Amino acid sequence: MNVKQDQLTLRPCDIDELVYGASFLGSGGGGDPYIGRLILQQEMGAASDLAVLDPSGLSDDANIIGIGAVGAPSVLIERLPNIDSFMHALECVKRHSGKKIDAIVPIEAGGLNATLPLAVALRAKLPVIDADGMGRAFPETQMMTFSIHGYIASPLYLVDDHCDCATIETRDNAKTDRWIRPLIDAMGGAAMAAAYPLSGKMLKAAAVRNTISMQLSIGRAVLGARRKKRNPVQALVKHFRAGENGPRFAARLFTGKITDLKLRIDGAFNIGRIRISDTQNPKDVCEITVKNENLIVRRRGRVLALVPDIITVVDSESAEPITTENLRYGQRVDVIALAAPDVLRSPKALAVLGPKAFKLKYDYTPLEQLHGAK
Amino acid sequence: MNVKQDQLTLRPCDIDELVYGASFLGSGGGGDPYIGRLILQQEMGAASDLAVLDPSGLSDDANIIGIGAVGAPSVLIERLPNIDSFMHALECVKRHSGKKIDAIVPIEAGGLNATLPLAVALRAKLPVIDADGMGRAFPETQMMTFSIHGYIASPLYLVDDHCDCATIETRDNAKTDRWIRPLIDAMGGAAMAAAYPLSGKMLKAAAVRNTISMQLSIGRAVLGARRKKRNPVQALVKHFRAGENGPRFAARLFTGKITDLKLRIDGAFNIGRIRISDTQNPKDVCEITVKNENLIVRRRGRVLALVPDIITVVDSESAEPITTENLRYGQRVDVIALAAPDVLRSPKALAVLGPKAFKLKYDYTPLEQLHGAK
Repeated sequence: MNVKQDQLTLRPCDIDELVYGASFLGSGGGGDPYIGRLILQQEMGAASDLAVLDPSGLSDDANIIGIGAVGAPSVLIERLPNIDSFMHALECVKRHSGKKIDAIVPIEAGGLNATLPLAVALRAKLPVIDADGMGRAFPETQMMTFSIHGYIASPLYLVDDHCDCATIETRDNAKTDRWIRPLIDAMGGAAMAAAYPLSGKMLKAAAVRNTISMQLSIGRAVLGARRKKRNPVQALVKHFRAGENGPRFAARLFTGKITDLKLRIDGAFNIGRIRISDTQNPKDVCEITVKNENLIVRRRGRVLALVPDIITVVDSESAEPITTENLRYGQRVDVIALAAPDVLRSPKALAVLGPKAFKLKYDYTPLEQLHGAK
Repeated sequence: MNVKQDQLTLRPCDIDELVYGASFLGSGGGGDPYIGRLILQQEMGAASDLAVLDPSGLSDDANIIGIGAVGAPSVLIERLPNIDSFMHALECVKRHSGKKIDAIVPIEAGGLNATLPLAVALRAKLPVIDADGMGRAFPETQMMTFSIHGYIASPLYLVDDHCDCATIETRDNAKTDRWIRPLIDAMGGAAMAAAYPLSGKMLKAAAVRNTISMQLSIGRAVLGARRKKRNPVQALVKHFRAGENGPRFAARLFTGKITDLKLRIDGAFNIGRIRISDTQNPKDVCEITVKNENLIVRRRGRVLALVPDIITVVDSESAEPITTENLRYGQRVDVIALAAPDVLRSPKALAVLGPKAFKLKYDYTPLEQLHGAK
């Protein structure tokens, strides 16, 4: 990874680290990272290095478009995301706006949706911006910093595997989300999306910054520990607390075995809950509630972490993040939580993506307060 | 009504006759004609006469767009169709195609959807074409002569009451229908649509012709009989058999009282069945199966009429057609059937809009054969 002024260059050898970091920030959602890795490797093999622009290097009048797959992550394992369909979405954006596109921004920083926009940028020969609209993964269109800043998702383009397209134009992002959910179902459970046409000025005001470089640095810490035969779960928590992008509170919340799993696909979401039991004391149970992403961790009635703080279940041995659709009975796991970026913790943001927005009965309490820090 | 070469001029005094004919051709569907009448009166009051073009007068390169409301008819009684939303749809058509629109064609000839395009044409100061894409009313996007001729509905624009818009672009009309149904549900159960961008040449090849003049002539026959205190139901059947637009087989299938009614809204359709009993002999029961429109009439196991032939339930006294959502227990009714236009009876058409397309277990038999005529 080369650093040239405001610009990183992403090379094929960076992919594993990037994918690890993206999986972790997925908070259980954002889709299977394995698929994202394969697609990114393929596009990088065919093209070359990818320019990753720091937002501060963008001119105010640059034209930027958000890119990501939408739908139930479990569907995207079986119906692979299609870069041709994204290219068709970009064509629609250009035809509709009459403007060229200057750069691509990932709509979210987690999982599959963190890598797909990079593959699209490679194919389209466009730079990608070192930022995103969530700083993690979230299940709904309006749960984005772009939306919280008052920017509209429309025109939002949904493209299926046959490059057939639905364009949604509303002035209300929650309405857009209500419209696209049943449509995505009718499209087979998933679609490739382009949304949030932003100017450079809008992006600089609203995006969560440095998420691609953060993915890389998380991946570097954990993959480095694995190579050095150090405990990767410890390395992960330590990395956040030392933090080259500034320290962030992080905690290992629970260690145990998955003993109960109730997950279903409902309205193009993966919904349910997981129970993890302490292997020494099976009565000591930790429960996680899921809507595509992990929303809340509770242990014996005590809340250990709450959305929008990032909650990720990782394999206890390898520290590999496990997305909700890949959770299985019997897995030995650690539950790791990471404080969300400040921009997700404002009252305005919490109204849209805090616990109440997910119909949880809890008020948001920052992770560090729940754990007596700070 | 003035006839000038290829052109009719529709005046305010024609509205009642037109609406009667449109209700009859609705075959139970197409939405409440009362609302269509009010909207058309309002637009005609504000504008003036409406030019109705014969298709043969169209140049081959004219740009024509289909107009109609979509969704469950019972929703359109409570959420009135909105001409502003149609105007927004026309703006989208123009912006997307980069061409001006030369004329409007109703997507169907029945009920509300026969009058709404006329109101839109008045507001948009465009002529309407004396033709449509069904020759009656049908519940699905692909059940149109335009579709049977291989023309695509896309881009199809759905606009809600707030002028928010969804654009569907597929190369498969059945897929378009699968996409729009759940979307219409999410839009509140109904939407204003523009679809089937056609050239004059395409329209001349595919449209059912003379449907507006046919609506007027049906209305003239029945409203004339009412004024002259003659039996309007008899006048209706006689009109078809004499037929100024050529004779068409028509039959009064049953007379009785509605004694059982099971109708529900499902997937933006009105679905169910009606039972009508003979008032003298209550065991003599006639049953009609409904999916927005009346699909099949059976009496003691014998089929009396089958889709695509037009099946309309009328009030026994006034001959007023009763749309499916306005059927009520206890109504005294006649069931009238009218042979469908030949274009709907081809094997290609029947595959799309015949009994099997509605999952009925019957092969299509023309109305006149079922009744021993030829």
